[in-house]
Amino acid sequence: MLPKALDDLIEALGVLPGVGPRSAERYAWALFKRPQVKLNEIAEAISSLHTKVKLCPKTFALISDSEEFSKLYADERRDRKLIMVVEQPFDIIPLEKTSKFNGTYHVLGGAISPIDGIHAGDLKIAELIKRVKEDEVGELILATNANIEGESTALYIQKMMEDAGLGEVKLTRLARGLPTGVDLAYADQITLSHAFDGRKEF
Amino acid sequence: MLPKALDDLIEALGVLPGVGPRSAERYAWALFKRPQVKLNEIAEAISSLHTKVKLCPKTFALISDSEEFSKLYADERRDRKLIMVVEQPFDIIPLEKTSKFNGTYHVLGGAISPIDGIHAGDLKIAELIKRVKEDEVGELILATNANIEGESTALYIQKMMEDAGLGEVKLTRLARGLPTGVDLAYADQITLSHAFDGRKEF
Repeated sequence: MLPKALDDLIEALGVLPGVGPRSAERYAWALFKRPQVKLNEIAEAISSLHTKVKLCPKTFALISDSEEFSKLYADERRDRKLIMVVEQPFDIIPLEKTSKFNGTYHVLGGAISPIDGIHAGDLKIAELIKRVKEDEVGELILATNANIEGESTALYIQKMMEDAGLGEVKLTRLARGLPTGVDLAYADQITLSHAFDGRKEF
Repeated sequence: MLPKALDDLIEALGVLPGVGPRSAERYAWALFKRPQVKLNEIAEAISSLHTKVKLCPKTFALISDSEEFSKLYADERRDRKLIMVVEQPFDIIPLEKTSKFNGTYHVLGGAISPIDGIHAGDLKIAELIKRVKEDEVGELILATNANIEGESTALYIQKMMEDAGLGEVKLTRLARGLPTGVDLAYADQITLSHAFDGRKEF
């Protein structure tokens, strides 16, 4: 019923996470209404992604092709003995915005999730252990997501650290509790349990 | 903090409807993980959109560049005296799937929405009036969306038809009521009001 070129585009857009056929159709129609020069810009940005962007060989953060390492690793002011372990490259952005952290990052590239076909071997865990040894890391902040996959991944890393004879390295997790600005009445039970367990003296 | 090429891509993806910075980041990361051949396919599908796809000059449905008119208009078995008026090209797909309709379509290209800067003149209403005259149309099904913008657009078309001396052409709207498979307890008041007003003998 649709022109083939449009079907092809809808199928191509369908590979994006969370984009079903209806969203892909809306995106295709929105693109159709853009001027050609804009379409060329987007097409160029997509096709040149791999030549212009790569992963830092140490931290696996996204860096420019002209860079050797992530600035957040190469900068001497960053403490390499303190590593924040995150799932995805974009997790670094909100963490950096806090300006609270002066260590370095390590991007796992996901979390263990057998249902989605993501196993421990798919993540940059061996590379993390190597960094911990080489840089004599004193603390790993396991900042994986606050869900089952994130927790499993944190537990797995703990076990790997022990197996590698690095059991004395401090492992921490980000605090769990009430997010700022949320009414107690709307908080879910798990969040409230964590907030209760982690309560602090007033 | 991010490589410029990635910032550019995130900005480019941000023009898609309903795609904020966080979604654009997720899309960019998903694209980064695709092989180059896939990226080239998507880029090609986007940049060639305007050369391979165009609007039917009669119905404003999306058609291949090789077609003169939409198949749903050119096909002699379709009744040109009956027109289903829709907002968007993709609205045709679910309607065609019902196999209930053998008339032709007319795509307005949106609905009147001053807040979004969409005025009557931006829609293919003059072209619709022209078709009604040329093809001696007997009925217009105003299948605009069941919301304020869709209703306003239907009312506007009604007025334009009268002004054009076409007041005797039958104008209909799709029925409003309970969608299939929905519990009465979960239906909103407006839907229930419509369902009540439109009740049929059992």
